[in-house]
Amino acid sequence: MKKLPLIAAFLAVVVSGSAKIVTQPVAYEHAGVKLEGFLAYDDAKVTTAKKAPGVLVIPEWWGLTDYPKSRAQQLAALGYVAFAADMYGAGVTTGDPKKAGELAGQFYGKPLMAERAQAGFDQLLKSGLVDAGRVAAIGYCFGGSTCQALAYSGASLAGIVSFHGSLIPAPAGAAAKTKAKLLICHGAVDPFISKEEIDGFMKSMNEGKFDYQFVSYAGAVHAFSNPGADAIAKSAGIPIAYHPAADQRSWAHMRAFFAEIFAKK
Amino acid sequence: MKKLPLIAAFLAVVVSGSAKIVTQPVAYEHAGVKLEGFLAYDDAKVTTAKKAPGVLVIPEWWGLTDYPKSRAQQLAALGYVAFAADMYGAGVTTGDPKKAGELAGQFYGKPLMAERAQAGFDQLLKSGLVDAGRVAAIGYCFGGSTCQALAYSGASLAGIVSFHGSLIPAPAGAAAKTKAKLLICHGAVDPFISKEEIDGFMKSMNEGKFDYQFVSYAGAVHAFSNPGADAIAKSAGIPIAYHPAADQRSWAHMRAFFAEIFAKK
Repeated sequence: MKKLPLIAAFLAVVVSGSAKIVTQPVAYEHAGVKLEGFLAYDDAKVTTAKKAPGVLVIPEWWGLTDYPKSRAQQLAALGYVAFAADMYGAGVTTGDPKKAGELAGQFYGKPLMAERAQAGFDQLLKSGLVDAGRVAAIGYCFGGSTCQALAYSGASLAGIVSFHGSLIPAPAGAAAKTKAKLLICHGAVDPFISKEEIDGFMKSMNEGKFDYQFVSYAGAVHAFSNPGADAIAKSAGIPIAYHPAADQRSWAHMRAFFAEIFAKK
Repeated sequence: MKKLPLIAAFLAVVVSGSAKIVTQPVAYEHAGVKLEGFLAYDDAKVTTAKKAPGVLVIPEWWGLTDYPKSRAQQLAALGYVAFAADMYGAGVTTGDPKKAGELAGQFYGKPLMAERAQAGFDQLLKSGLVDAGRVAAIGYCFGGSTCQALAYSGASLAGIVSFHGSLIPAPAGAAAKTKAKLLICHGAVDPFISKEEIDGFMKSMNEGKFDYQFVSYAGAVHAFSNPGADAIAKSAGIPIAYHPAADQRSWAHMRAFFAEIFAKK
């Protein structure tokens, strides 16, 4: 059976309080790779006649697991149209850091990173529910880096939010192209992100006069926003951890950022 | 005539929209110096029977000018009891950076910095309007540094917010005493705050396991929150400037911070 975008085999309705969140797998394709993303919105708040700001969600290097899907649902509950993108291929996820490194490694430093994310962005718009002038991308870990790359590519984004993402200094020519404002949410004691990496990133931001905010959260390490990080740390043997305060604070900062960038002119 | 604390010669009521902000000069004394602070609250929201969180406001090195008073009024409009403290002496203000440097220079590196701020804190509590378990201090420039010193002294603060303050690394022994969470709002291209100063501050925060957030705002220099900064820059010949986006963002971050630290347990 041919997969049709947005005509999903499965459509779930989550009733939580007064919010009715519709979730929907979305099949799409990029550069010959079959992908499957995850759309979420509140159909009491959003319709094709009553469009809302859109938020693209780029997963951690583990792929499109339940975690980015749960974020898409939270965003939907806030009234946004959220689309958790698939970067790897339909159903491709892993809990093995070696495999995750290989999967994410296809993208770092290559145009494919922004291009694959752009394919997700296009699917978000194809929902027909999004006010195209008010779209942001958020991402976690590898997904945070991907958001940076997507911004640098000149994508029509009002803003991006990187949660514990590796930091990609803006490449030459990016300043003139970038439309997005950047909010970088960083774990202050993240052992995966060196001081040199931070300094290089900040330098490129300041020199390129990017519109950015960089927040360091005390005590937080890599994956600080993921409530499942401690379990993954144990099974995968890597120094990541959930940090409830940093999670709540960075989410609050994202919301303040959205209030700014989605404000109607 | 003897000045009586809280029995003010002058009491102003500002009617703005539905809010009715009461403002009141408050005479007090510290270490033989006669001081005059500025209390502000909304008497429709706050009474001795209906206490509210309190916010101490520490001025820039110019002294207790209209700027910190305007911030106290804004905080009052949000429902807080605000007290803009006097650090220098009743009526002592200046627009001359040399004089301001001398005035502020009495405090840097000395216990007097926290002690004089604590005297203001005590006056805030003496208003009888404040829920003593929910008090924060915010400060601008020199006042931001003073908030840091006040936190390190062990003051009973839920949090402090430093706006474009010089950064004081936590001294030995401060980590065990400090009760306040810290929100540091920093202009990313502030020429008055060196990279070494930032690095030293962050190191002391991380080593002491302080509960802090450090935010860098793109394009912002010293005094970014002060709408009068451009005029002062011209008259005083120093590289400061108002930055509307950084002002609005840091204020939003302060509000999110207050929502966290003032939440009832």
